Amino acid sequence: MVEYDALVIGAGIVGLATAYHIKSIDPNANVLLVDKLAAAGQGSTAKSAAAFRCLFYSRTNFALADSSVEFYRHVQDDLKFDLKLRWAGYLWLFDENEYHKMLPVLKDLASKGFQYREYDEGELTKKIGVKTNFADDEEACLMGLGNVHKGILIPKAGLIDVDSLLKFYESEFLKLGGKVQYNTEVTEVVVEPRQPLGMPGEPYFWQDIAIAGAKTTKGLVRAKKTIIAAGAWSSQLLDPIGVECFIKARKRQVFSVKAETEALKRLLFTREFTNAGCLPFTIVPKPSAYIRPAPEEDALWLAYADEFPRAYKIEDNPEPEENFYRYGLYQVLVKYFPQLMDCQPFSAFAGLYEINTVDGQPVIFEENGLMVAGGASGSGIMKADAIGRIAAALYKGEEHALLFGDRKFKVSDLGLKNRNVEPEKLVI
Amino acid sequence: MVEYDALVIGAGIVGLATAYHIKSIDPNANVLLVDKLAAAGQGSTAKSAAAFRCLFYSRTNFALADSSVEFYRHVQDDLKFDLKLRWAGYLWLFDENEYHKMLPVLKDLASKGFQYREYDEGELTKKIGVKTNFADDEEACLMGLGNVHKGILIPKAGLIDVDSLLKFYESEFLKLGGKVQYNTEVTEVVVEPRQPLGMPGEPYFWQDIAIAGAKTTKGLVRAKKTIIAAGAWSSQLLDPIGVECFIKARKRQVFSVKAETEALKRLLFTREFTNAGCLPFTIVPKPSAYIRPAPEEDALWLAYADEFPRAYKIEDNPEPEENFYRYGLYQVLVKYFPQLMDCQPFSAFAGLYEINTVDGQPVIFEENGLMVAGGASGSGIMKADAIGRIAAALYKGEEHALLFGDRKFKVSDLGLKNRNVEPEKLVI
Repeated sequence: MVEYDALVIGAGIVGLATAYHIKSIDPNANVLLVDKLAAAGQGSTAKSAAAFRCLFYSRTNFALADSSVEFYRHVQDDLKFDLKLRWAGYLWLFDENEYHKMLPVLKDLASKGFQYREYDEGELTKKIGVKTNFADDEEACLMGLGNVHKGILIPKAGLIDVDSLLKFYESEFLKLGGKVQYNTEVTEVVVEPRQPLGMPGEPYFWQDIAIAGAKTTKGLVRAKKTIIAAGAWSSQLLDPIGVECFIKARKRQVFSVKAETEALKRLLFTREFTNAGCLPFTIVPKPSAYIRPAPEEDALWLAYADEFPRAYKIEDNPEPEENFYRYGLYQVLVKYFPQLMDCQPFSAFAGLYEINTVDGQPVIFEENGLMVAGGASGSGIMKADAIGRIAAALYKGEEHALLFGDRKFKVSDLGLKNRNVEPEKLVI
Repeated sequence: MVEYDALVIGAGIVGLATAYHIKSIDPNANVLLVDKLAAAGQGSTAKSAAAFRCLFYSRTNFALADSSVEFYRHVQDDLKFDLKLRWAGYLWLFDENEYHKMLPVLKDLASKGFQYREYDEGELTKKIGVKTNFADDEEACLMGLGNVHKGILIPKAGLIDVDSLLKFYESEFLKLGGKVQYNTEVTEVVVEPRQPLGMPGEPYFWQDIAIAGAKTTKGLVRAKKTIIAAGAWSSQLLDPIGVECFIKARKRQVFSVKAETEALKRLLFTREFTNAGCLPFTIVPKPSAYIRPAPEEDALWLAYADEFPRAYKIEDNPEPEENFYRYGLYQVLVKYFPQLMDCQPFSAFAGLYEINTVDGQPVIFEENGLMVAGGASGSGIMKADAIGRIAAALYKGEEHALLFGDRKFKVSDLGLKNRNVEPEKLVI
């Protein structure tokens, strides 16, 4: 029976990037990537809002996102693999309160050379017809909506095509000789004594034990190193062997409305902010629902990452909820953007965030010979390349990973034991 | 419909102490304690090894355990409520390696006035017939057992009767006018908008929402404050409303063997260490299985808190495993204590630790108006009084709790946001 050098469980964007980078830095390694679904990224990756930004306050978040996005730019511009990157920017609409809280953070970032542009309410209304003041709107006040005081545009941000990104990593991994097996669900991580005695109920707690691979619906896979990159499903594999990864699943929903009216077309295809030919990814003040432009399909994606009391729950087929749109998202966004009046979603989808509930940043660690990479908490796509490189460095036993652009990153900074991550102050 | 001031969910030792201390510091509060089982402490408390120690390295652990145990002493000696405290001590057997690692910790503690006594291998063999060197035992070497280099006796430690402790808190809580309702399972924590609109699917994410109580198998219970003290079951109530408590459940098993032979009777009733009339709670070097004397029932309880790959799993009726005793516990302990040769357990029980997987220390926090007290990670009994006082202080909105003996404890130190706990260096 073949024993792989590395078995990567989960062909979402994190698993793919991990498998590819292991194969890149260790070309002779026999690497198998398995996924329970029929193709790459069908768990949560394909359900993402597929946007990215390179402006973060946390050093960790910045290093991961900026280097990953620079790599995606390199893939598209230098390697000529089209990822449909669109530098539409992020447009953050703040109420007065939030703006004043954010100002020192933004000034601090500006002093380090980060770029952003600021717009006042009048400019914003003129550019995109956003309603900025709800003093005359009793309903909006009852809903607790925040007025728009300022807009902050982050230019180094935008949209990406997830299918293309998945295809890039998958094809490159295969080109390097990696193996991929879909429709292969891992049912159990296999724990074995290093010196089996052939007695009933092994391993016993006094034995020296190791991870030997995984049982799958297609049979046992033996591997020297098993790497869990199962995203929102990670704890289902780790809890049974008592390994804590601090990842919980939470449903996220996206509703797509067609830009059928002239007003919506003007909003979607505005050139007022960047030359990307569409609206930036736009976040309203409070609650911070957002619009993700989807110019290729003449649509606007509407979403909100709700927290309490949204359940932590692993679901194989999370469904978008009609009431979430009708009484939640629509009610909020139509107040800011009256252009949305009477819009019904023509399609909707839901996926799972894999949330690291400790600090919201990725976890990449090894414990008892088992590796885990995940917990990107909703920014897996924009950080996947860096996560893959750091996981590959951990696999190779290196102290530092080399992110794209030759940036050194200390592997243990994302581990559990000597974790060293800066909290993020710029959150949606 | 009656609205309680406080609803405490879970009548294990933590829930009972919490309910009692809330009622103590707020006598007019209308407090209801519910539990799904038929009596107090039937979840995990009654399945505990029921031992305590007051020697910890961590300031947090020491404050919680020492003040709780001093309170139990006060209950027994001053209030004349018999908790069957027995100051049998803890006897820690170390191999050379562990001993040298522990030495600076112990010396540091000694310099702060903590008492302990040290025994060398010869003394230990003479006193309790422990085998200290396995150089001649191939099997023991294969099992990786540690030799006994030194024994450290902690005198301020011992045994307690859990039923009596439960009875104390329950009767005092009832005397103060608290209400207890057993056979009442909470099925759901109730989340409501503060200003209901009477529309389908409320609450919406833009509404101001609050916890209104809990649905139970005996009907809805409304309360101004809901407090989860459901131990290992806490996440089953919290995950559905998206509140993270960082508590996971892990099975723990205790096997009781009768001291039927003369050699075992001598071991159980030894007076070589303390005047408690029995063996100390004794931990062998590696793996650190332990013997908890149960002199009232002429028995020795044998146990081991196994970690990887022991599952994190919530079970309503955890069962002790025959193989865990036969091939695990017995094999290890009989090597150190040949007196145990051929011993079969005459009874066994299993319960769940409610482990805080972040740092192993209790969590007491309020989030979105919901309180949580738990995560004592296997030392709930020896810390329950302090946990109850801190939870009651949080309930009252106080910055500090007053532990028994007038020790001030900052409530937020055990919270999630400004958590401030010292790691423990003296672990079993």
